[in-house]
Amino acid sequence: MAEPVFEKLTIIGCGLIGSSIALATRDSGAAKRIAIFDRDAAVRDAARTLGLGDIEDSADQACADTDCLIICTPVGALGDALTACAPALKAGAIVTDVGSVKGGAIAAMTSATPSQVHLIPGHPIAGTEHSGPEAGFATLFQDAWHILTPLDKSGPAYSSAVERLAAFWTRLGARVETMPADRHDRVLAITSHLPHLIAFNIVATAYDMQSVEDGDVVKYSAGGFRDFTRIAASDPIMWRDVFLSNKDAVLEALGRFSEDLAALQRAIRWGDGETLIKEFERARGIRQAIIEAGMDSAEANFGRNKPEPPETD
Amino acid sequence: MAEPVFEKLTIIGCGLIGSSIALATRDSGAAKRIAIFDRDAAVRDAARTLGLGDIEDSADQACADTDCLIICTPVGALGDALTACAPALKAGAIVTDVGSVKGGAIAAMTSATPSQVHLIPGHPIAGTEHSGPEAGFATLFQDAWHILTPLDKSGPAYSSAVERLAAFWTRLGARVETMPADRHDRVLAITSHLPHLIAFNIVATAYDMQSVEDGDVVKYSAGGFRDFTRIAASDPIMWRDVFLSNKDAVLEALGRFSEDLAALQRAIRWGDGETLIKEFERARGIRQAIIEAGMDSAEANFGRNKPEPPETD
Repeated sequence: MAEPVFEKLTIIGCGLIGSSIALATRDSGAAKRIAIFDRDAAVRDAARTLGLGDIEDSADQACADTDCLIICTPVGALGDALTACAPALKAGAIVTDVGSVKGGAIAAMTSATPSQVHLIPGHPIAGTEHSGPEAGFATLFQDAWHILTPLDKSGPAYSSAVERLAAFWTRLGARVETMPADRHDRVLAITSHLPHLIAFNIVATAYDMQSVEDGDVVKYSAGGFRDFTRIAASDPIMWRDVFLSNKDAVLEALGRFSEDLAALQRAIRWGDGETLIKEFERARGIRQAIIEAGMDSAEANFGRNKPEPPETD
Repeated sequence: MAEPVFEKLTIIGCGLIGSSIALATRDSGAAKRIAIFDRDAAVRDAARTLGLGDIEDSADQACADTDCLIICTPVGALGDALTACAPALKAGAIVTDVGSVKGGAIAAMTSATPSQVHLIPGHPIAGTEHSGPEAGFATLFQDAWHILTPLDKSGPAYSSAVERLAAFWTRLGARVETMPADRHDRVLAITSHLPHLIAFNIVATAYDMQSVEDGDVVKYSAGGFRDFTRIAASDPIMWRDVFLSNKDAVLEALGRFSEDLAALQRAIRWGDGETLIKEFERARGIRQAIIEAGMDSAEANFGRNKPEPPETD
């Protein structure tokens, strides 16, 4: 196995992403030691049982002498988590996160970052609808994009820290890209945040109809509705934080969505089949683009399932 | 193998559903002979190559002496298709369809139905995003619901025809239910039509952003967006007909959806995290209900994939 990228890695927050990082790090040998802290004692116990790493009872202990701190909390908790970690961080340590909103993550973390450490925000485009340490698995990041949004800082120390962090995620199987935080947030508002908001919404709307239609909404959910319920099963707190911290880009995307929907609604009301066909053909076109770009494969799968445990005789 | 339910079955329109019925009928022995007509000569040629049954060159020939005619065209084409078939239908024959809107199907078919045949509208809750005769497969209806919406007719001949048609779909592996057409259309507006409309819309909205964001919408589609593109790849003409023929129920469902979405939008704008959490928790609840009802299994799968062909050495 290749040399570890880090002597010590620290994971704060041990949900789906944190536990998957721990497992992928162990399997790839990307770090020699893995220290984990979660503020929830039950999660720490679960992480211990799962053998995810050295489970510590404070952020301080987990961060002592670490080379790289990855905070895996919802975006709204990043600031507090980093504040708890900061005093224990050594000079030259890397601090990163996995939040789905980079502008919000940077706003929350910058003031809590000690001057001698390297803050490099990041976001793996990977996940499932499941939450908690038991949901993690080592191949979650395999062939998934990992976006780094380095700060506008020059200097060889910072550049070299970015390179090391990129090397770490590459070892976990990810394809690393860098881009400015605001661009990340605009793109993700369309490709991830708006789809989740719409899925949450359609499922809630249907939930109201469930009682009206006497259970038939669930019974016949296979007609298309059910596809939305999987994505709408994602963690509510994580998503609340996403929407609140990427407010402007989400509202902008939502505005476009609603305008387009109003046009479809009008076409239905007035029996304008031509407009409907035209829009539906457009939707088909982008599906084709996704297939052609190879983004349709299982390897590029957000919502990939945790592999079944091997059968034992 | 059990006795065939029908001596002769006729399939008009040989797309995904028509070809799947042919294959499932052959595999289950549900009919002795399968006659197929499609007004598109290229589809007839493909059906011939695939060996789906006796491919006829006119609706008349396909319908001669048939015991059961299943029209598998989009809802908007049902009237014309049945008009072409009607003169060839023998007394006592069953006429059914597979349209996603039963009110619209009944309106289109009733006047074209000769008095001596039994019109029994139906709808299999099964499908994939693929279209055409090559997309069909024999297990598509396995454990899927098949909803029959018999007309308000009494008499033992009609009842016995409904029973035979139910027995036919049961042989194809489906779970048959009967309900009034208007109830079907309200339930499907929520569980199928609205989700497809929303999927088409979000994909079209994103398509516009694709050029703005220089290709990144496709590149990062795995963040949730891609889940919508699959369902939005469905046949545009079929869906145009669904929305136009189930206008009232779709507009009603869409109205509820838009109200709920406006409430989420307001919560995001005003930073009301509590409302967001409450709605997201509700969405999670219905996912649980679907899992508990066993509607989450591959056996109840709309969008099940066509099985891979067995590997040959």
